Amino acid sequence: MLQMTTTAASLWATYELSLTGPSTGNPFLDVTLTASFRQGEREVRVNGFYDGAGVYKLRFLPDTTGAWSYETRSNAPDLDHVNGTFEVGPALPNHHGPVRVANRHHFRYADGTRYTNIGTTAYVWNLQGDALEEETLASLAAAPFTKIRMCVFPKHYRYNENEPERYPFKLVTAGKSKWDGSFAGADKYGWTFDFTQFEPTYFQHLEQRINQLAEIGVEADLIVFHPYDRWGFSRMSPAEDDRYLRYLTARLAAFPNVWWSMANEYDLMPQKTPQDWDRFINITADNDPFGHLLSVHNCFKFYDHNHPRITHASIQRSSANLSAVWREKYGKPVSIDECCYEGTIAELWGNISGQKMVRRFWDGVVNGGYVTHGETFNNDTNTIWWAKGGKLIGDSVARIAFLRRIMEAGPDEGLDPIKSTGAYRIAMQGGLDNVVLQQLFVPPAGEEGWAPAMAWWPTAGQPHRYYLSYLGENQPSEATVAVPPDEHYSATLIDTWNMTETPLAPSVKRGDVLHFEPKPYLALLFKRID
Amino acid sequence: MLQMTTTAASLWATYELSLTGPSTGNPFLDVTLTASFRQGEREVRVNGFYDGAGVYKLRFLPDTTGAWSYETRSNAPDLDHVNGTFEVGPALPNHHGPVRVANRHHFRYADGTRYTNIGTTAYVWNLQGDALEEETLASLAAAPFTKIRMCVFPKHYRYNENEPERYPFKLVTAGKSKWDGSFAGADKYGWTFDFTQFEPTYFQHLEQRINQLAEIGVEADLIVFHPYDRWGFSRMSPAEDDRYLRYLTARLAAFPNVWWSMANEYDLMPQKTPQDWDRFINITADNDPFGHLLSVHNCFKFYDHNHPRITHASIQRSSANLSAVWREKYGKPVSIDECCYEGTIAELWGNISGQKMVRRFWDGVVNGGYVTHGETFNNDTNTIWWAKGGKLIGDSVARIAFLRRIMEAGPDEGLDPIKSTGAYRIAMQGGLDNVVLQQLFVPPAGEEGWAPAMAWWPTAGQPHRYYLSYLGENQPSEATVAVPPDEHYSATLIDTWNMTETPLAPSVKRGDVLHFEPKPYLALLFKRID
Repeated sequence: MLQMTTTAASLWATYELSLTGPSTGNPFLDVTLTASFRQGEREVRVNGFYDGAGVYKLRFLPDTTGAWSYETRSNAPDLDHVNGTFEVGPALPNHHGPVRVANRHHFRYADGTRYTNIGTTAYVWNLQGDALEEETLASLAAAPFTKIRMCVFPKHYRYNENEPERYPFKLVTAGKSKWDGSFAGADKYGWTFDFTQFEPTYFQHLEQRINQLAEIGVEADLIVFHPYDRWGFSRMSPAEDDRYLRYLTARLAAFPNVWWSMANEYDLMPQKTPQDWDRFINITADNDPFGHLLSVHNCFKFYDHNHPRITHASIQRSSANLSAVWREKYGKPVSIDECCYEGTIAELWGNISGQKMVRRFWDGVVNGGYVTHGETFNNDTNTIWWAKGGKLIGDSVARIAFLRRIMEAGPDEGLDPIKSTGAYRIAMQGGLDNVVLQQLFVPPAGEEGWAPAMAWWPTAGQPHRYYLSYLGENQPSEATVAVPPDEHYSATLIDTWNMTETPLAPSVKRGDVLHFEPKPYLALLFKRID
Repeated sequence: MLQMTTTAASLWATYELSLTGPSTGNPFLDVTLTASFRQGEREVRVNGFYDGAGVYKLRFLPDTTGAWSYETRSNAPDLDHVNGTFEVGPALPNHHGPVRVANRHHFRYADGTRYTNIGTTAYVWNLQGDALEEETLASLAAAPFTKIRMCVFPKHYRYNENEPERYPFKLVTAGKSKWDGSFAGADKYGWTFDFTQFEPTYFQHLEQRINQLAEIGVEADLIVFHPYDRWGFSRMSPAEDDRYLRYLTARLAAFPNVWWSMANEYDLMPQKTPQDWDRFINITADNDPFGHLLSVHNCFKFYDHNHPRITHASIQRSSANLSAVWREKYGKPVSIDECCYEGTIAELWGNISGQKMVRRFWDGVVNGGYVTHGETFNNDTNTIWWAKGGKLIGDSVARIAFLRRIMEAGPDEGLDPIKSTGAYRIAMQGGLDNVVLQQLFVPPAGEEGWAPAMAWWPTAGQPHRYYLSYLGENQPSEATVAVPPDEHYSATLIDTWNMTETPLAPSVKRGDVLHFEPKPYLALLFKRID
């Protein structure tokens, strides 16, 4: 006899059907389950999944209010042809739906609300036990971050020797935990798992944490594969990888705040071929009827972000000032999702200063991109934010919050780089050996309508309305205003490190010279007054 | 009747013959004069030049002691078949001859003395009147610089509106001096000169200043052409350019401390073709029997430093950490001759901090290159070191002196980057989108003999003897020693900004972990003890 439960239905909230079905054999392999959700002419097809103990689930993310119906299909008679209707109510407070690309290079929630992409990184914060995980959630609730980069699988690396409480697959043989400088996979470390049997409790815990992120307005940029592995999860067979992807998408595609990051450092996984990555992207997108953001993150070599199902360029690079070039190259939003971490650990990528982190954020923003944060301060317990979460102690967080406020007080369309026809074109053509000018958008003489606020500094904004120029570590004592002719702007000096905004002049025009104390990390903001 | 005078002859000192000859007509065009200097089977042919007032000169730079003879050829009977012998004595103190390439990527004086290439920039310091020029010489005498980048021609640019006391050619019509934002040449500014008539006093003054540089151990990296021009010197005809080159080389090739920098920012001179630059290089080298260093400096796009007569890669770029890549690309020494200037002027390239300048010096050095300094502090008289010389006031000079002492206390062969087979090879192949690793020389596991002092940091030295690692703005709290197995080294912590050297351990071996206070601008020096 069918036992069925459902959750309450509201716009942009995950709607879940729970059914009971076969619990003998291996339901993960043996039982197929899908459902069609219908409203008028629309049909949305979702995959069900086995959640253990004879429970099967189907999840749907409604994008309209009103009556929807559903009907299941399964090779298990108990699960086949189950149908019903439900009423989708209006969105609950702070429910805005999935984040999508907007204005080609920016983001909005599905309901049109602006989304400012300000990420942080805590790869396996959700596998550290309740006490630390709750501390991480409290840290995030007080922080400026609107996205967290996190892994589905546990992580093997220096500072990451602790075993998770649960595994995503059924454990057969436990192996070694000690980091020996390599991520050689299960052969070397002695772990074996039954990859035909998922552990639902592992994924239930992940889902709990993702829901808690949603409550505090944080998107989960979920890393599907990664190389930092002692258990063998990075070296499954293609059939095992694909089954995992179908299971993961069946469970999570109806969560509003999930993004798919197909890999962290895909190019550190030589066991995966280019064909594998293409197939992973397609399986994920095919099985996600709700159109979540999808990307592939690199170590050395960018993935080809022109792939039609990649929604935005997720980039690792120790500088962010080429965002404007990558925006044009890929025609998509640019998210510098790894630019080194603020901290003091030995590794090169884990010991930049707070100043440097903040500089990279600003470099990205005034070149029309977005940047992701992380912290790697050495400590005796190896509780490092970048992997495990915990407390945020770095100097950059407050400055990133200051930047977020400036961004959100700026044009609703987002900040687009103010383009030139000079150095910019040369940079695009790859003909620029002298990188000093790669960050420049030099105004061509006499050309109007797009002129930056100042000739020398990378500038973003919206033409004729708003120009934000960032001076970085340069320390001029003067700047010549280069707004379009016959327009007047207020001029504000921003100290991006000391978090001050100082009016420089109530009304400036093209050619006016502004004087100020030379120091690093200044920005100049010009807002149109007439 | 022939009047002839000669100077005393000693090794590596300019030996000069002065002859009197025709002073009617235009001797610059009408009179040819060459001489052959012979010692045994050797014959060195030099060009003479007209020095005004009926005086003709021939200059020779002896590279061996003992008896040399000479004999002239001229189309003027008074100057033809003049001959004589002279005895070249031993070198005077501090006379070491021209600087030449040594060990493929480094420099030595012709007598084998090590030369450490530490440049500064004062483009037209020699055209500022005696008071300021003598102040500049005094500044240089107290500074660490062994090279100055300076122009033959005067300079037209912002902050450079003062007219020189003399011109290199005979003035016909004076024009305007005011900088209007462009270097459009004589047409716009209204100057005309007779390019068939050199002004010997202009060059005599230049030579006096070059000789004074030699006295304080400074090489003159002489910029032959540049675009910053209101007088028309950048827009002469090919025939006028070539005559100028022959005159300049006839006058200066026998000076021990001259280098030929064919251009500053050759790519900002659209009026010169690639064929022009190739011809300029060949004319200069053909007419320099003493083999001075020769280079071409860029703005946006590097000149092709593979040109067989270019001796070293003179590079403008706002970072120096790819020196190791360029060394390999060109097989020549790398000199980052412009990496922005320490100062506070409005222009992007003229307002980096002292910290940044020092960082670029170290980045260059630990990647096997050399870096050139400059200062651009705003002041009311526009007396800016970068153009006019004067006083050095920046914070970087003392730190550059500190670095020079470290370099000169290091291996006599110079510092070569310690190579890897990983990121380095990828960078060489251009396949590296993530620039963080371009500065890395990661040791391949198990490979010996070239292992760097530390895995994460750019390191230069001499294998098995000396490793200097620079941590830049990174701030780790620990570092793992990665010297070759079974070797012992002393370990010293260098604070490159505070100019301290602190012993960390008298003897360390591979795998030892060093701990220290995290802060920016540290270096680690490992010297072999057994």
